[in-house]
Amino acid sequence: MPVRNASAQWNGTLKDGKGLLKFADYEGPYTQASRFAEGDGTNPEELVGAAHAGCFSMFLSALLSADNFNPLSIETKATIHMDKDDIGPKITHIDLDCKAKIEGVDESAFQDYATKAKKNCPISRLYAGTEINLKAQLL
Amino acid sequence: MPVRNASAQWNGTLKDGKGLLKFADYEGPYTQASRFAEGDGTNPEELVGAAHAGCFSMFLSALLSADNFNPLSIETKATIHMDKDDIGPKITHIDLDCKAKIEGVDESAFQDYATKAKKNCPISRLYAGTEINLKAQLL
Repeated sequence: MPVRNASAQWNGTLKDGKGLLKFADYEGPYTQASRFAEGDGTNPEELVGAAHAGCFSMFLSALLSADNFNPLSIETKATIHMDKDDIGPKITHIDLDCKAKIEGVDESAFQDYATKAKKNCPISRLYAGTEINLKAQLL
Repeated sequence: MPVRNASAQWNGTLKDGKGLLKFADYEGPYTQASRFAEGDGTNPEELVGAAHAGCFSMFLSALLSADNFNPLSIETKATIHMDKDDIGPKITHIDLDCKAKIEGVDESAFQDYATKAKKNCPISRLYAGTEINLKAQLL
């Protein structure tokens, strides 16, 4: 299996400093304001959400493909919720909202596939430190 | 604390289909080849790595800033390792390799701050489903 790399840098204090998130050809600036308020830039949580939505969607396609269904489209939105505890900021839960067009599968079977994808996709397994909620809709 | 959104879509089967990972203004294509071989495009693991490197670097700056040290630069590379088990692909471990220029802190104290950041940053806490290894170097 391949090994993947990404990186980041942070210059300065938490309050006055700024950083860059980097992977492949992407470079995205982030600051305390873009992470914990509404400042310009991105934040680790947006990347975490895109990774999760992408992995879940691909895994659901894989499960359906293996049983010879044709996944026309699987669209998933991830919403990342944070709060604070004694240690610091914490991702308390992630909501996955999936809308899918699949040829030939019925509602009950679709929900079973979606539940299995939520439980077993590699990024869900990585995110064992939070709660993951799934709403899946067959269009 | 803010709520963050990101999304993804996948069209088609695992083998012949393709997807898009989306957050903020970014859209990055991904396929089975870009995830599990060397095809063009990105993959969820690169985003997971950038999120982790970014969160760790910012958290380390926060710990140092709180004790009135000045973090000139903190650069962290994340390497994501995958393997397969009975369920499917799994992220077995993540290596964080950090190089930092900090005014006024000695080696022993720096290692303590870095170890604490690895343990307590929000993304490390999220990634409870894998092993995280840290190599931290004070430049």
